Amino acid sequence: MPNTGFPTQGPTLRELGEKEVIRRITHAAPSAVNGDDAAVLYPASPNSRVVATTDMLVEGRHFRRDLTTPRLLGRRAVTQNFADVEAMGARPIAVLLSLSAPMDLPVDVLTEFAGGIAEEIDGYAAELVGGDVTAGQNLVISITAIGSLGGNRPPLTLDGARAGQQVIAHGAIGYSAAGLALLESGLELPDEFAPLIEGFQTPTIRPGSGVVARSAGASSMTDNSDGLIVDISTLAERSRVNIDLDKEAIAPDELLLAAGELVGIDPWKWVLEGGEDHTLMGTIHGEAPVGFRVIGQVAKDSKDHKSNGERAGVVTVDGQPPAFRQGWESFA
Amino acid sequence: MPNTGFPTQGPTLRELGEKEVIRRITHAAPSAVNGDDAAVLYPASPNSRVVATTDMLVEGRHFRRDLTTPRLLGRRAVTQNFADVEAMGARPIAVLLSLSAPMDLPVDVLTEFAGGIAEEIDGYAAELVGGDVTAGQNLVISITAIGSLGGNRPPLTLDGARAGQQVIAHGAIGYSAAGLALLESGLELPDEFAPLIEGFQTPTIRPGSGVVARSAGASSMTDNSDGLIVDISTLAERSRVNIDLDKEAIAPDELLLAAGELVGIDPWKWVLEGGEDHTLMGTIHGEAPVGFRVIGQVAKDSKDHKSNGERAGVVTVDGQPPAFRQGWESFA
Repeated sequence: MPNTGFPTQGPTLRELGEKEVIRRITHAAPSAVNGDDAAVLYPASPNSRVVATTDMLVEGRHFRRDLTTPRLLGRRAVTQNFADVEAMGARPIAVLLSLSAPMDLPVDVLTEFAGGIAEEIDGYAAELVGGDVTAGQNLVISITAIGSLGGNRPPLTLDGARAGQQVIAHGAIGYSAAGLALLESGLELPDEFAPLIEGFQTPTIRPGSGVVARSAGASSMTDNSDGLIVDISTLAERSRVNIDLDKEAIAPDELLLAAGELVGIDPWKWVLEGGEDHTLMGTIHGEAPVGFRVIGQVAKDSKDHKSNGERAGVVTVDGQPPAFRQGWESFA
Repeated sequence: MPNTGFPTQGPTLRELGEKEVIRRITHAAPSAVNGDDAAVLYPASPNSRVVATTDMLVEGRHFRRDLTTPRLLGRRAVTQNFADVEAMGARPIAVLLSLSAPMDLPVDVLTEFAGGIAEEIDGYAAELVGGDVTAGQNLVISITAIGSLGGNRPPLTLDGARAGQQVIAHGAIGYSAAGLALLESGLELPDEFAPLIEGFQTPTIRPGSGVVARSAGASSMTDNSDGLIVDISTLAERSRVNIDLDKEAIAPDELLLAAGELVGIDPWKWVLEGGEDHTLMGTIHGEAPVGFRVIGQVAKDSKDHKSNGERAGVVTVDGQPPAFRQGWESFA
């Protein structure tokens, strides 16, 4: 059965006080540059620019204590922010962590969470360089990721897709939504579904994938966070191109089909609307870079469509409107 | 009477949806680099390092709707983060904003807040470059500030105070706590107290003060955020020195004395424990840089104290233990 649940025992934040809580968090995620008014970072290369992004995780809305662990949540929080850094073609170098938590929360929740952050950023040689802890009604976590963009090529932006390029992707699509549905079903889950549970609890990207894609000549990139169709549509709209996805290339695999059968959900819904896989998706002329596969094409005549007054930003699957196309909405 | 209260009318977050809410926020605080997976920043000078810091503001704990306005709160949120950047001797260049808010919140609260951010960062030529909005039980705001540290001098760190230096400060001390006490008193407040109310609602630092101090040869710096004695003690402990503050230089001025009389509080408590003025405080050999004044001395023989086994990190006022020495504690 999956690993879930938060620690409920041990000393609380109120019992330990702010100083000791911070000491334990920084012990769980050590850093040479943490502990002053602000962290000083030394970007990697002489030519480098700085990349920054932030995400907030609210208990009950973005995570539930019964469906994950603090350690897994810490890892996921890193991935969802680092995916945004990698999606610029940049290298993640640092994380800042702010959180509010009820005063009766066992400190182990926070140290486990920080331990998960440390575990995940280690694969990037990044550091937790600063943060803030405060009391609040419920657990709210804010992560800011900072990256370094070296070299002379432009960043991989949402408006960088060009007519005639291939659409590429790196990693699972639909696994996170499937894993969540499996956990929410409350059913006894056979071990074979572990990759889906992991896809939900700790989606991962191979560190450096965005850098590899940029070096290989990709011109646009984003990640599958709000839903495949929604995110690819944003890319298409911002680039003023139309995109057609290959049905076969994104079709649910056997694991997704089996999970769909178990819980009675069409797995295409997970693929097209799921999000939260944080799989990097971009566009490139020619072959897919190492680690990426082709999942579609940017229409050759997107610019003509535009000049003819037709709407650019249309996303199809094998030329047809996608069967599912909703995405994450923060205020619904 | 002071300007307080949050908008209670107009379309809510739920009614408008995430996209429109983000559109209105970015309209209130426009930026050329916002709107992609992550923001790309171009640090100012060839030699520059990046400085980063973050702070979280929780409704009911760090602010109350009846004691400020969203616009003033936005300005204060910038100052408290930029003060940490300036306290490294760096120049603030960017802000990221994450927030969770109840879905029935009028969007004007957020656009006013973003407008306040835009107003304050304008004085620094900085930009709001990214963020995240999400639903949550209560209003929780997380700000990350990014700065640029140019040149060859080291940053102004907490461990940089040296024996024989002067302690310098820039701006009000105790005004924020006094302003809060005045507002909490519920009394009719004469206009003369406006500087104290402003000190609480919108403490400010003169942009570039940290850079000036670093150029002039300051070696350590922090800001008055948790309380004068607590923050100076942190500086003294981390630098392993003892610090004596000049009673006359920090004594409550006539305004603080009058406010203390009105609400029946010893104004020394505001000066010594108050915090949240975000006044920059540091140490330097020789004269105070432009805009700073001398408020104390680093003991000449701090190192001897240490080698004699005596405890370094002691802060006194005219050689005596301070009358008040508590500070902010997040979990109390």
